[in-house]
Amino acid sequence: MGNTQHYAECIEECLKCAQACNQCYDACLNEEDVAMMRDCIRTDRECADLCFFAAQAMSTNSAYAADICRICAEACEACGRECEKHAHAHCKRCAEACFRCAEACRRMVAQAV
Amino acid sequence: MGNTQHYAECIEECLKCAQACNQCYDACLNEEDVAMMRDCIRTDRECADLCFFAAQAMSTNSAYAADICRICAEACEACGRECEKHAHAHCKRCAEACFRCAEACRRMVAQAV
Amino acid sequence: MGNTQHYAECIEECLKCAQACNQCYDACLNEEDVAMMRDCIRTDRECADLCFFAAQAMSTNSAYAADICRICAEACEACGRECEKHAHAHCKRCAEACFRCAEACRRMVAQAV
Amino acid sequence: MGNTQHYAECIEECLKCAQACNQCYDACLNEEDVAMMRDCIRTDRECADLCFFAAQAMSTNSAYAADICRICAEACEACGRECEKHAHAHCKRCAEACFRCAEACRRMVAQAV
Repeated sequence: MGNTQHYAECIEECLKCAQACNQCYDACLNEEDVAMMRDCIRTDRECADLCFFAAQAMSTNSAYAADICRICAEACEACGRECEKHAHAHCKRCAEACFRCAEACRRMVAQAV
Repeated sequence: MGNTQHYAECIEECLKCAQACNQCYDACLNEEDVAMMRDCIRTDRECADLCFFAAQAMSTNSAYAADICRICAEACEACGRECEKHAHAHCKRCAEACFRCAEACRRMVAQAV
Repeated sequence: MGNTQHYAECIEECLKCAQACNQCYDACLNEEDVAMMRDCIRTDRECADLCFFAAQAMSTNSAYAADICRICAEACEACGRECEKHAHAHCKRCAEACFRCAEACRRMVAQAV
Repeated sequence: MGNTQHYAECIEECLKCAQACNQCYDACLNEEDVAMMRDCIRTDRECADLCFFAAQAMSTNSAYAADICRICAEACEACGRECEKHAHAHCKRCAEACFRCAEACRRMVAQAV
């Protein structure tokens, strides 16, 4: 059984990643080449939603926090891999935040076992 | 029309406040005097949910970001006033985060007009 | 002060609308003419998120339920007007759900005063 | 890979369960014996949040829908077992909705494999 202090680093990365994903989502929808960004738009929303949900689960000390972080790590990894294909600055920033968050989630899950 | 950079400070306070509220919620449910904490539990959840929702609206550059922050400011104010009635350390920390966030939301709304 | 029974019809419409918006969002991202759908994608997510948030506020009997439904009505109206511009079946279905939900939210707000 | 039509029954049960949990949460916070209801309050919020999140994942056709439903089934089961300990009508209604939703989630997961 973890406690919320224990989760501090992972919460921090989830919240940064959610913001980067949402900013990338907004920027992608404004890009001229929006057709090329369709997968990025989708993974951005999916990842942002999971990151906020994981942060909420950790900060309420939910019994499902580790299970949610396990899914969040996958979503971050997938979003990061999609974002790094694109040259836009918002995609590069987002990919970086995603990979950092994926790692923080995996560390959190490993400690929770 | 704002942009997400413009919102940075308000997003930051919303995310800190959401965490403080969720930690206070979790701690209140574990207190011996839980009957005294029932209003605090309710306002904690309400405020945390609004803070995350406001942060999401700002980071996606939603057309409703200012409207949501206006409600968020009220919820923060109400939660802060409830929390400051109690001597528990988690309530004191939460009240402080709530009042700071209420102010940040009001500033954001004033700039958005 | 309402109670959750009082909100039943509005909750129902919000949940139907959230689903229609999310299905339209998913389908728009798969359309060949995704560039034409960019505003629709944006309003779909915005409206779905607000509808779920409004349903949550009503079902928890939140003090901010009416305030949130007021914003939700605007988001539904805007999403409906965007969706009705497009010939896709998912857009037509979504527009219909949006206009019904906007009306239900306005009725809820009128009763809450 | 499912599609959103395929998910219709599970979405329906998740949304009913989320409402029952939120109404039980609200009612528990108003009970005289709130100290006895503390676990119920906690599982109600946890389960409601997961049910809405699962419904959102299914209606956007998320790649993580089945993973989220697997956690949702556990949260529903746990909330149902807590709620059925109590004689309050809102707890009995909530337990019933939880067990139905747990089953719907398990069926959804089995079909998604």
